Amino acid sequence: MTRSAETPQKSWIETAPDCDFPIQNLPFGIFRTSDRSARPGIAIGDYIVDLSALFQANLLNVRGIIASVLTQPYLNDLISLGKNTTNGIRERVRDLLDENNPDVRDNLNLRERVLVRRSTAEMQVPVQIGDYTDFYSSIDHATNVGTMFRDPNNALLPNWKHLPVGYHGRASSIVVSGTPIRRPKGQQMPEGAEAPVFGPTRQLDFELEVAFVTGKSTDLGQSIPTEKAEDYIFGLLLFDDLSARDIQKWEYVPLGPFLAKNFGSVISPWIVTLEALEPFRVKGADQDPAVLPYLEFEGKKNYDIQLEVAIQPAGGNPHVVSKSNVRHLYWNMCQQLAHQTVNGCNINVGDLYASGTISGPDPGSYGSMLEIAWKGTKPVKIPGFGERKFIDDGDVIIMRGWAQGKGYRVGFGECRCEILPAIT
Amino acid sequence: MTRSAETPQKSWIETAPDCDFPIQNLPFGIFRTSDRSARPGIAIGDYIVDLSALFQANLLNVRGIIASVLTQPYLNDLISLGKNTTNGIRERVRDLLDENNPDVRDNLNLRERVLVRRSTAEMQVPVQIGDYTDFYSSIDHATNVGTMFRDPNNALLPNWKHLPVGYHGRASSIVVSGTPIRRPKGQQMPEGAEAPVFGPTRQLDFELEVAFVTGKSTDLGQSIPTEKAEDYIFGLLLFDDLSARDIQKWEYVPLGPFLAKNFGSVISPWIVTLEALEPFRVKGADQDPAVLPYLEFEGKKNYDIQLEVAIQPAGGNPHVVSKSNVRHLYWNMCQQLAHQTVNGCNINVGDLYASGTISGPDPGSYGSMLEIAWKGTKPVKIPGFGERKFIDDGDVIIMRGWAQGKGYRVGFGECRCEILPAIT
Repeated sequence: MTRSAETPQKSWIETAPDCDFPIQNLPFGIFRTSDRSARPGIAIGDYIVDLSALFQANLLNVRGIIASVLTQPYLNDLISLGKNTTNGIRERVRDLLDENNPDVRDNLNLRERVLVRRSTAEMQVPVQIGDYTDFYSSIDHATNVGTMFRDPNNALLPNWKHLPVGYHGRASSIVVSGTPIRRPKGQQMPEGAEAPVFGPTRQLDFELEVAFVTGKSTDLGQSIPTEKAEDYIFGLLLFDDLSARDIQKWEYVPLGPFLAKNFGSVISPWIVTLEALEPFRVKGADQDPAVLPYLEFEGKKNYDIQLEVAIQPAGGNPHVVSKSNVRHLYWNMCQQLAHQTVNGCNINVGDLYASGTISGPDPGSYGSMLEIAWKGTKPVKIPGFGERKFIDDGDVIIMRGWAQGKGYRVGFGECRCEILPAIT
Repeated sequence: MTRSAETPQKSWIETAPDCDFPIQNLPFGIFRTSDRSARPGIAIGDYIVDLSALFQANLLNVRGIIASVLTQPYLNDLISLGKNTTNGIRERVRDLLDENNPDVRDNLNLRERVLVRRSTAEMQVPVQIGDYTDFYSSIDHATNVGTMFRDPNNALLPNWKHLPVGYHGRASSIVVSGTPIRRPKGQQMPEGAEAPVFGPTRQLDFELEVAFVTGKSTDLGQSIPTEKAEDYIFGLLLFDDLSARDIQKWEYVPLGPFLAKNFGSVISPWIVTLEALEPFRVKGADQDPAVLPYLEFEGKKNYDIQLEVAIQPAGGNPHVVSKSNVRHLYWNMCQQLAHQTVNGCNINVGDLYASGTISGPDPGSYGSMLEIAWKGTKPVKIPGFGERKFIDDGDVIIMRGWAQGKGYRVGFGECRCEILPAIT
């Protein structure tokens, strides 16, 4: 369906201009309700399309589809059917939801079977995550961290502009938006102390990230060139890489972050497909020095996706503390995936690859409290609720992200997490 | 069944004194043959007991057992039944295999159904690995690395004696013994160069490790104290953490090893249970300074397990290059698991926790070529096949491990990997 950018397609399910889930989006997720077991759905406005119910109603006759994948509690097998099939499903749903298509619109009984109010559904982690990698691909973030902890004149480490630095994270503790996380306890080495102390972190932080979900696997020994990488990327979600800075500082040399990061990471529930993001491609950063050939790429491989973080204190309203954008990433997803596999490392459907904290060039666009409050030296005022150097117990961290179209936005839904006090 | 240490139990399946799988061991694995789909088995001598066949013959009536787990291609669901059940299975098999038990011994038809020759079976990765952690728990290894790359007088980093340093690794690329691995390509920064180069690693290394498999899960937020840790540990296997030293050196600061380690790790196929290793407990290293309370433990938490690495050049015989022992570990498994979860990080059945390279105090007991050939300065002679600073294409790395009893050994079987040339 081709339309001019001036007259965006509309659905008979009405969506406000700032709704994350207009007909242009149609992201995939796993939902359940009191009477529907966990299963794949597609978000539209305030509703979810139950793909299994649609299939049972003979309305999802898409090449390659297999009924059993539509009742599974993870998207892995559905995604494994391949982009031809998942795009076919998305396009079929788009046709059915078009304002001029009466097939579902005018059949109240059918509408009740295939549409579920989002407010009545509980979302789950959408994929069984095999492996999870966290990159470190924002030059402003890496520069800020290097400036604070090393040398402002040599903030970036020598390897940073030659490869997308990354490390393996913990898949088991990745939870879906809305799941509260307990403040972790761990070892910290206070300034000037002779021995480490143990207790709840005093520097609990968020990291504003996006992550992509792989939709195709490779065999061990195989590499993915940058120009093929998008074939392997199913879609994106928001990623809050919760971090305990004091624990991190003490533990991370020489093998990287461990307990500072694996006590909980939060994802938004809907996977926004690359196809939905297609209109929002932008050129990325100029990369100088030139990268090695296996990291070269052509075309627009970054995306213009606005990001926002708010802190909502207990009993208060969300207070926005950062506005950033995915376009700030120095290393794009194709480069990340090419790097991840250049040594033959195999990938699976449902792996997660997070961007690393996405900071922009201005203080208002920094993606972590460490940077926003500049190592505690510039506390952030939360009107009526004091100030924050890091995150307090009871605070809710809310991340949002969307690509802005003309009269609509392709959004991710919230990535929300309340911090509970440590168990004492 | 209680016997004196002087008269070890014997099976009607004869095993030589140096066989890894006498009746005292009975490890669990996943095997398949031309006519049996992948399924759980227990090793005994040159045979595998097909647990599903045993169940079908009404000989595996153990409390809590569920028939369906005995035909699955991973052990996760079998292990999830709990130690009461898996120990019950192991004890029942031990009774049936006892030299004085005629039930299977004297029934040739039954023997054909429940016993499979190991030589006709293909072993698989025994568990679906959720997350994989690699620790760094050998003080001699950490000291050697610190001496080579940092300061011989301050070889150990400040945190090393306060916590079991660890990092998350890649689960997807863990393969079973016998799977060849291709030499990885990647970025390296040659000494004195201005920019990195790309190519096959010139410093391919092994790391001699053991790994434990978890048998019980926890919820996010929950911690496992050291005194409960063994309830969560199902058993152990050998682990070859293949490493590309030149890639590692360039990439690992500040977030740890990534492509240098995730191109392939090799495990032995049989999980040796903690119960089989019970007679081989030993006291561990004295830990000084004292550890924080959550890392304190009582009793013998280390194991006397002999380890050996051989290099077998193409067309040659295995040449032993290292003899080490699990007892050399400074941090024991209970401390590792307590540390992994002290911040609330959740664990799943089938996670893998590797020890890190196990080096002993003497050069003959070093667990990596980096140490054995001391950064290339002391090449190892392979009689008739030149010398090695690292691993050559075509070399097969063979690891073995066993606990020595009186007249028998509880062994792990081989952990074997041939290095194939890089694709050019």
